Amino acid sequence: MAHIEVEEGIPGIRCLVLFRPQTGKPLYDLAQVLLRGPSTLSPAERELIAAYTSYRNDCMFCMSSHAAAARCLYQEKKDIVDEVLTDMQRSGVTDKMKALLNIAEKVQVSGKEVSRDDIDLAKRQGASDREVHDTVLIAAAFCMFNRYVDGLASFTPADPAVYEEMGERMAKGYKLPTVLT
Amino acid sequence: MAHIEVEEGIPGIRCLVLFRPQTGKPLYDLAQVLLRGPSTLSPAERELIAAYTSYRNDCMFCMSSHAAAARCLYQEKKDIVDEVLTDMQRSGVTDKMKALLNIAEKVQVSGKEVSRDDIDLAKRQGASDREVHDTVLIAAAFCMFNRYVDGLASFTPADPAVYEEMGERMAKGYKLPTVLT
Repeated sequence: MAHIEVEEGIPGIRCLVLFRPQTGKPLYDLAQVLLRGPSTLSPAERELIAAYTSYRNDCMFCMSSHAAAARCLYQEKKDIVDEVLTDMQRSGVTDKMKALLNIAEKVQVSGKEVSRDDIDLAKRQGASDREVHDTVLIAAAFCMFNRYVDGLASFTPADPAVYEEMGERMAKGYKLPTVLT
Repeated sequence: MAHIEVEEGIPGIRCLVLFRPQTGKPLYDLAQVLLRGPSTLSPAERELIAAYTSYRNDCMFCMSSHAAAARCLYQEKKDIVDEVLTDMQRSGVTDKMKALLNIAEKVQVSGKEVSRDDIDLAKRQGASDREVHDTVLIAAAFCMFNRYVDGLASFTPADPAVYEEMGERMAKGYKLPTVLT
């Protein structure tokens, strides 16, 4: 049961933004611009950074839902998502993505963990300043979303099929849900 | 020097939102509604939760600036801010605020650290569901802001006078800065 009185049976962040839509609005706006807005990183790559950060934070709801969105967006290359969540360095993502996921891994621990060497490695692999910026902010934002969801103990479904369906919806973008009537 | 090419000499999050105003907009909107929007927690109390979380994350820029904003808003009771940053449990804040700051402390580590006992204690001290929600989200949001600022190594002034002036500006609210001309 969640720590506050939210609508029962609505999973994850959704019940929290229905409880407090005033804060939900900028949270959804942030997710939309960061994960779906114009970028040289594909939506699939950005969802993978989100899922990887959530995995490092041990946030089952965000990890499962954003991994599902990433699988949906990677389409026939969807196996790469589970490769990264199993062993990122041995996965089939590009060296640039490995360097960006390494930065996300540092951000998950603390901003101070990101070293000049981590940044230089990403730049040598072709990452732009904008891509480094967005990676840091995606990882930082999921350190927020993960804590929001788990800190209020919101409902985390166990059935993988629920996340598959959620991932398909999320792949289309983020918009504040209208209050259920 | 920051990890990406931002305008030199502009401190903290400000240079980052000027680098990427598309993501800056929802970040400032979130800060405004969370820290200044209608709430039964005063802006001073909410800034204190932000400063305390930033202190626990060892983020000098956010800690110094939000502590300065809190001092400004607490006015003649401003000493309470440094009491909390020195020893929260022995500080002069109310028992309700101690229970909420305890929740923020747990969120800073991980959302999963927040226990039913932490919530029950806050409720026994008179905290509402909305106040618990906002405390968790403020602490979670500063786990993001702290990582954003430190993860990109943005400029952190050392002079306390700079933060005092910043705190006075922040006390008036959060609005995306217009690009300097």
